[in-house]
Amino acid sequence: MALPPDATVSDVGEFGLISELTSLFEQGEQVLVGPGDDAAVLRVRNGHVVVSTDLMVEGRHFRRDWATAEDVGHRAAAQNLSDINAMGGRATSLTIGLAAPADLPVQWALDFARGFAAECAEVGATVVGGDLTRADQVVIAVTVLGGCTVSPVLRSGAGAGDVLALTGRQGWAAGGLAVLGRGFRSPRVLVEAYRRPEPPYAAGPVAAEAGATSMIDVSDGLLAEARHLAEASGVAIDVRRDAFEVPEPLVAVGSALGADPLGFILGGGDDHALLATFPDTTSVPEGWQVVGEVLEGSGVTVDGAGYDGPTGWTHF
Amino acid sequence: MALPPDATVSDVGEFGLISELTSLFEQGEQVLVGPGDDAAVLRVRNGHVVVSTDLMVEGRHFRRDWATAEDVGHRAAAQNLSDINAMGGRATSLTIGLAAPADLPVQWALDFARGFAAECAEVGATVVGGDLTRADQVVIAVTVLGGCTVSPVLRSGAGAGDVLALTGRQGWAAGGLAVLGRGFRSPRVLVEAYRRPEPPYAAGPVAAEAGATSMIDVSDGLLAEARHLAEASGVAIDVRRDAFEVPEPLVAVGSALGADPLGFILGGGDDHALLATFPDTTSVPEGWQVVGEVLEGSGVTVDGAGYDGPTGWTHF
Repeated sequence: MALPPDATVSDVGEFGLISELTSLFEQGEQVLVGPGDDAAVLRVRNGHVVVSTDLMVEGRHFRRDWATAEDVGHRAAAQNLSDINAMGGRATSLTIGLAAPADLPVQWALDFARGFAAECAEVGATVVGGDLTRADQVVIAVTVLGGCTVSPVLRSGAGAGDVLALTGRQGWAAGGLAVLGRGFRSPRVLVEAYRRPEPPYAAGPVAAEAGATSMIDVSDGLLAEARHLAEASGVAIDVRRDAFEVPEPLVAVGSALGADPLGFILGGGDDHALLATFPDTTSVPEGWQVVGEVLEGSGVTVDGAGYDGPTGWTHF
Repeated sequence: MALPPDATVSDVGEFGLISELTSLFEQGEQVLVGPGDDAAVLRVRNGHVVVSTDLMVEGRHFRRDWATAEDVGHRAAAQNLSDINAMGGRATSLTIGLAAPADLPVQWALDFARGFAAECAEVGATVVGGDLTRADQVVIAVTVLGGCTVSPVLRSGAGAGDVLALTGRQGWAAGGLAVLGRGFRSPRVLVEAYRRPEPPYAAGPVAAEAGATSMIDVSDGLLAEARHLAEASGVAIDVRRDAFEVPEPLVAVGSALGADPLGFILGGGDDHALLATFPDTTSVPEGWQVVGEVLEGSGVTVDGAGYDGPTGWTHF
């Protein structure tokens, strides 16, 4: 369809846009019935499905002037794919609900869909259905389905004596967000990390096979996620400051903003790193870094003491 | 948790409200891992899953002054459960994404969840996960999962010579909406039909077993859905006016508003009736009413001619 560059969603209409969007989504081999019917039908292996859902709201989770539509598509897919990763599973199928103002440029929706599909392709997952409707602001609702080849890794399995380990970039997106919030666009590597996270998708299933006792993805903040693990498992977790090597761009931003750069690492989310516990250091897979330990008790400490910096994000 | 009656979502916070909501959702036997982890894990039978997603936006799909929170919960669940019904399947599991303004009363969210859970209980389905975040208006994103015991019934299987049949109330919700739109609250039976649809949940699987060749749920309007069937199947559909007995409350509303009451039936959605095609009249199950026929060609006609009344709802 040839569109004027400034065409809006209301110009092409609901069904016109759905048709355009659907054509962007290739279907995977798991798809028995794809988009266009009342529901999709998917082949499922191993007798179970892993499912998670997430919302992204314009002005809250993204700003159209801080990230391209394609970036937002990548991020929306990444944060959902990461939830399956954190169970030790592999994502296969996603649905997208898109609520949008009538004056949203069609090009934005198409670029969003392209970014979304490209991120899904990283793990071989495909978009199998969705819904489109009108709202005052852009709201993106994604549901992701997948499966595990070994038992899913829950938040609740950590035991005293386990080691806490991390894999993936951590704090980069928070650094990028801080930079954007001050009106800057550099260091570019951090801004890019915020716009397009690179979750360690291969690491979740590997950790499950290696015997991870608990796992979570870092979307709200490292210490906040550690607290989720500690609460679900009924244990205490101590994080070691010296386990983290602060990358140079975060040092630069900390220095420019007068902030402790470790704060981005301990309090930041949005990189979708994985945080997991393993029975001992020998069971920690390659590419993971031991950053703390699991103790009897409750709560999360840093070097054995309370931490008074920001620990994560809260929505209300 | 004892709450002041006017507590808002921002008073109890994201995690407080999630905890309250989760406690309202009983878990079904299909749930291997329920709410509270990065993802839910569900047992799946027959090697497939049927999945659909829908959005409801405040001011567009519902108004808080026209329906109670419990009603909105019933409707949100019903419109999704109905999509699985329209495949001939049975729903088992749902996720809810709720975006809400910070000043949304907690009581609204709890009543919504109660209505949602009660509607799901009608078919034995349960809420297995969700997400909660802040937005300028209430947006509800639901994904439903289920399964079929026979092949799913698609929109694309109708053939010339089939009969078109309908089951469930049709036009009642549209009548109720018209009444509310004029500032009235009666006939109460229509307003109630709008607030709480009663989709014919048992009928979808029965139709599938009876050999329905195509099926769709009427959410956007009867003639609009007939058009979806006709387009997907590459056939024409003719609907017969005299097949419909116009119920007395619709006659009354038509008369009060100076409208053709049949318009509510032909153009109305939201009752989530089922529209299906069957090979012949003898294969139409009990409780279905033959309302038209499938012909060679394309398009939808009423008594062999074009129809110039409203045929359905469009979102942009």
